[in-house]
Amino acid sequence: MHKSLVLPAALLAVCGATSADEGQWQPHQLPQLKAELKRVGIAIPAEQLADLAKHPMSAIVATPGCSASFVSPHGLVVTNHHCAYGAIQRNATPERNYIADGFLAKTREQELPAGPNMLVYVTDKVENVSARVLEGMGGADGKAMSGKARHELAQKRIKALIAECETDKMYRCSVPSFHRGAEYYRIRQMMIRDVRLVYAPSDKIGNYGGDIDNYEWPRHTGDYSFLRAYVGKDGRPADPSPDNVPYHSRDYLAVSAEGLKNGDPILLAGYPGKTSRYKLPVEIRHARDRAYPLLAAEYQADLDTIAAATRGDAAGEVRYASEVKTINNRMKKTLGLLDGFARKDLAAVKDAQDAEFRAWYGRQANVSPTMLAELDAAIAADMALADEEFAWSVATNSDLLKSAMKLHRLALERAKPNAERKAGFQERDVSFIKAAQTRMEQSFAAGVDEARYAAGLRRYAALAAASHPQGLDALLPAAAGVPALYAKTRLGQTAERLALMDRDAAAFAASDDAFVKLAVGLHGVAMSLEERRMEVDGNLERVIPQYMGAVIAWKKSQGKPVYPDANYTLRVTYGTVAPYSPRDGLTKGPFTTAEGIVEKHTGKEPFIAPQKLVDAVKARRYGQFKDPVLGTVPVNFLTTADTTGGNSGSAVMNKRGELVGLNFDSTYESITKDWYFDTAITRAIHLDIRYMLWVMKEVDGADNLLREMTIKYPKR
Amino acid sequence: MHKSLVLPAALLAVCGATSADEGQWQPHQLPQLKAELKRVGIAIPAEQLADLAKHPMSAIVATPGCSASFVSPHGLVVTNHHCAYGAIQRNATPERNYIADGFLAKTREQELPAGPNMLVYVTDKVENVSARVLEGMGGADGKAMSGKARHELAQKRIKALIAECETDKMYRCSVPSFHRGAEYYRIRQMMIRDVRLVYAPSDKIGNYGGDIDNYEWPRHTGDYSFLRAYVGKDGRPADPSPDNVPYHSRDYLAVSAEGLKNGDPILLAGYPGKTSRYKLPVEIRHARDRAYPLLAAEYQADLDTIAAATRGDAAGEVRYASEVKTINNRMKKTLGLLDGFARKDLAAVKDAQDAEFRAWYGRQANVSPTMLAELDAAIAADMALADEEFAWSVATNSDLLKSAMKLHRLALERAKPNAERKAGFQERDVSFIKAAQTRMEQSFAAGVDEARYAAGLRRYAALAAASHPQGLDALLPAAAGVPALYAKTRLGQTAERLALMDRDAAAFAASDDAFVKLAVGLHGVAMSLEERRMEVDGNLERVIPQYMGAVIAWKKSQGKPVYPDANYTLRVTYGTVAPYSPRDGLTKGPFTTAEGIVEKHTGKEPFIAPQKLVDAVKARRYGQFKDPVLGTVPVNFLTTADTTGGNSGSAVMNKRGELVGLNFDSTYESITKDWYFDTAITRAIHLDIRYMLWVMKEVDGADNLLREMTIKYPKR
Repeated sequence: MHKSLVLPAALLAVCGATSADEGQWQPHQLPQLKAELKRVGIAIPAEQLADLAKHPMSAIVATPGCSASFVSPHGLVVTNHHCAYGAIQRNATPERNYIADGFLAKTREQELPAGPNMLVYVTDKVENVSARVLEGMGGADGKAMSGKARHELAQKRIKALIAECETDKMYRCSVPSFHRGAEYYRIRQMMIRDVRLVYAPSDKIGNYGGDIDNYEWPRHTGDYSFLRAYVGKDGRPADPSPDNVPYHSRDYLAVSAEGLKNGDPILLAGYPGKTSRYKLPVEIRHARDRAYPLLAAEYQADLDTIAAATRGDAAGEVRYASEVKTINNRMKKTLGLLDGFARKDLAAVKDAQDAEFRAWYGRQANVSPTMLAELDAAIAADMALADEEFAWSVATNSDLLKSAMKLHRLALERAKPNAERKAGFQERDVSFIKAAQTRMEQSFAAGVDEARYAAGLRRYAALAAASHPQGLDALLPAAAGVPALYAKTRLGQTAERLALMDRDAAAFAASDDAFVKLAVGLHGVAMSLEERRMEVDGNLERVIPQYMGAVIAWKKSQGKPVYPDANYTLRVTYGTVAPYSPRDGLTKGPFTTAEGIVEKHTGKEPFIAPQKLVDAVKARRYGQFKDPVLGTVPVNFLTTADTTGGNSGSAVMNKRGELVGLNFDSTYESITKDWYFDTAITRAIHLDIRYMLWVMKEVDGADNLLREMTIKYPKR
Repeated sequence: MHKSLVLPAALLAVCGATSADEGQWQPHQLPQLKAELKRVGIAIPAEQLADLAKHPMSAIVATPGCSASFVSPHGLVVTNHHCAYGAIQRNATPERNYIADGFLAKTREQELPAGPNMLVYVTDKVENVSARVLEGMGGADGKAMSGKARHELAQKRIKALIAECETDKMYRCSVPSFHRGAEYYRIRQMMIRDVRLVYAPSDKIGNYGGDIDNYEWPRHTGDYSFLRAYVGKDGRPADPSPDNVPYHSRDYLAVSAEGLKNGDPILLAGYPGKTSRYKLPVEIRHARDRAYPLLAAEYQADLDTIAAATRGDAAGEVRYASEVKTINNRMKKTLGLLDGFARKDLAAVKDAQDAEFRAWYGRQANVSPTMLAELDAAIAADMALADEEFAWSVATNSDLLKSAMKLHRLALERAKPNAERKAGFQERDVSFIKAAQTRMEQSFAAGVDEARYAAGLRRYAALAAASHPQGLDALLPAAAGVPALYAKTRLGQTAERLALMDRDAAAFAASDDAFVKLAVGLHGVAMSLEERRMEVDGNLERVIPQYMGAVIAWKKSQGKPVYPDANYTLRVTYGTVAPYSPRDGLTKGPFTTAEGIVEKHTGKEPFIAPQKLVDAVKARRYGQFKDPVLGTVPVNFLTTADTTGGNSGSAVMNKRGELVGLNFDSTYESITKDWYFDTAITRAIHLDIRYMLWVMKEVDGADNLLREMTIKYPKR
């Protein structure tokens, strides 16, 4: 190697170093991006990528909240370790500590039930149903309707579209909105409900670095695990049963151990959750100056309360460990957003874009002259209501209260015909509600909940009066009165909660349980907020399609396609392997190596690597997984791909569509990408598939799975 | 730029990326390194570099504790901002705040006296006097002598060698030992004692990043300032006088604005202070496991005491600011050493080297069979005594006590003929003692000193009994008795201290001043420690020359020259511009840029950049100082050069000997280089001379100096 090839880090900052790989594209949009895909170096034709029935997209699947892919014809699925964590946890016991020790089924018989929360969704049909949802809502007809009426009409049509689609228990259908309501697609997914845990490495590999390394680079996490989809003997999804057989996955991804090098192209397919790329400057300012600072303070206060309430109570700590982890994760993300907003004035960037768009819009013929004013008014109403909704969440920060409200609402909705019930309370949802009410027993302690509720009420009282929902203050207990509520409730018992699932509204009204009474009392305020939300959303739903339609036309006039914000639907993004410079004089990535694991290994959680792994690194037993340039096994790498939460477990493919990595995180500096994709610093963090294969071979001896997969080894 | 040129950071860690540029060479050694200098790319012949009378070495000078160089024929000297800080400070007033605002003399007349502490030393003669110092001390003769007798004989000979050399007030001579006493060189330096402050940028440039960025990278410090050497009209050094004229510096460095790029060779010449590269493994373990942890704890405790004693006392805080800064700096260095020792087992590295050497030594004919055992015994005695000396320093942690002991000792030494006095108490030293006793008034407050002394006594009591010097415990006051001491002393007054400079021992013995009495009482223990130190050093001085002679022969047998540990004498080192990887997945350097200053600018100390500079960066007014690769002005850069404290201000030269930078720091990971030069991570931090020139032109308008220097601009 010649030294002059190592370019100064400062250069990266100056040149940008990478092309703009922004965009979470709906597969059908890809043919519009032919030139871009070619430029990046993707060898698969765009038309093929657009077809969900063809390789490789038909190998891409979802699990709840995560992305995954088939890697064998026998329903073998690979996803992140953190995506399968619940499945590992429910099978673990003190004697068989699959979390700490990992789990490997050497035969099909040893594969373990992943539990009712683990499902595999295979998207098989996507239809544009915008016309059926929006018919008669635009123009004069729409303007005549109230926002609430419009929203309810859209919801009614969506429910009908779903019902029409879910003719068979094997399908789960949804009709998410795209472009903030400008378009609607009906998505049909085959839902496989017998999923089994096949293999997970120790969390000393799968969660190496733990929360400390969350959102951080350099990273050394082996965040992968294997599941298997099972179906009935007839090949159709079936309830879990020992008689089920592995699903025959017609399509699956081959795994390439040939690896990537800096600058190489990648494709990434998965189910990104939620982005806000098309928000207005005023919305960024609201988030930056008001909503996020309040949210961060709320998270911190809640964490402090939980810490104080569980101090010296090991069992309580365990019960709330998951909740604390979740809040910490959300807080780190919120702080990352605030840091990012402080680093770069995104509102000013958006101001410039917005001004340019408004000027263009002003020059168009045959457009509504009032649209922009209507948009601004609808957005202002949305932000004001969001402040009240935040205050409501602070005032109801109790698991018991939330449970009581949920069960009361179920009773009220059940009195209606199924089709007219609110989404989330239809018959199709009852089993999910029951599971959640049952699961609560693992993460609840009355004393802690009491402390959180009292503290939440005190914080609510300190919030600006304008954000207090009308009528709420009078209905809430005083913080000092909270202990009395907990003395007069039986909702802490699972049986009691489950029993309430079958009671009617009258039974709730007559109940003497303190939290049931409180829930019944608060119902009016909750409904009022909900109705105002429908009104606001309905108004947004009328004006946003006009607005986004104009934005799309504007971009089209510049020859640029527009991707919709993420909404948990299947998307494709592409990019290149690339380092970045978080600040002057410093370069991060693009690869970390096995040696870095040993370097971080302190012997203290979360930096305890398994001895077998440490030994293999020290002996440099890298075999076929050694990168020819790095001279060692790469562990994680960075790309410019456009990802967000929900993309966990997404297949990272090389230009030929072979699996070379799994997406699992992004860097701290990238957190603001949910609002604005800053090409220079946005990087997704991926597991290098060679590290996974190496651990399977050298550490865990998962030869059965290595044989089951189709692995392309480098020619040497 | 093509992306594939940016190599992954991990690669650096694997390949090392740089050659071994270890070595702080005596200029006369350079001809032995011809091949190395050629490999690195140095164009100046080694013989020329070895000659102190020739360019460029005759342009290299020293200031107290720092390095510098002439940059014009009129005695113009460039060094670090922090090296001239005292000179700036003494000229600053609230009205003329040269620290915050900078200072620029537009004419010679405006140049300000730098004060008695600022001197310019020009090394003009170096002679090997080993034979004259060591004659009759080796072999049987030496063994017959006690260590103390040997040490005293060597000191007597050194004093005679110095006296013989200092025939003229214009010279200051010294006879430092090299290789821990294997060789002695007599060094004659012309001492210029009229030095004036010419130009210093604002500390918002010269100390940007302050203590927070000390030892850190990325760095953005404009650590430079200009002085001028003045001499009498006869051209000889003279006491400061308005009649003096600028020194005619025959040789000086041309300044190159052509800049460097990654991988380019550099030469660095200066006065490195102290390294410990040839210590034995047992000495590393003693430092790592005992001495440094105790030292770090001592620093922290002392800092805590000062903080508590000055809390709410702004004047006291100012008085101790410099002391706190010094202790903080030492503590950061000590912690850096401990971190480095924890990161890499240097003792094990040394074990291997030591074992290899001992095996080689065992195979040699005609060598002392007992030398290694004698060496180990002498080192063990040295470490044991060092523990006691540390305890003594803890037990005497009072400026008043140290002042009293110094003055008492002066009285005792003055009773002897000048030649027989202990070094540091001869007539040549009196003016320095007086200056120090006077300067103390700026950094002393009785209440703080009292708190430090009482706390020190408490810490001393807690140290292991084995480290308590014999007889000391009985002589020390109880911590509770300390306030009484401060009530009964007048040593806090400068006049009182200066008056004591003329008193004899009898006057000290008769004094009723509490601290004088204490100093007189402790004298016996102090002398006992000093005599044991002489004995230990004398024994080391007998065996170390044999040991180092054998090490040099061993290295010679491998074709490798050996450089001596740093000892504040003129040395040359060379290296290349190079980034480094402090850990897997991360690359630092080699350049920072002007944009990075604005990036760090928070408006809070120490990150306040002058508005004029910020504006120039934002307007990208870079002109001739723009780097063609970076596209901006480089601020600081990293090289593999081998430096240490004392190298501050050292000229960094390109392959033709033109000034391209000033050395001013090294990275945190490099701190252990004082013990072991780890090629992969050791990097020196330099000011890029283009940044200095750019600030002079765009921010400070120092056109007079730009004209005075010979600047080579890049051809475009």
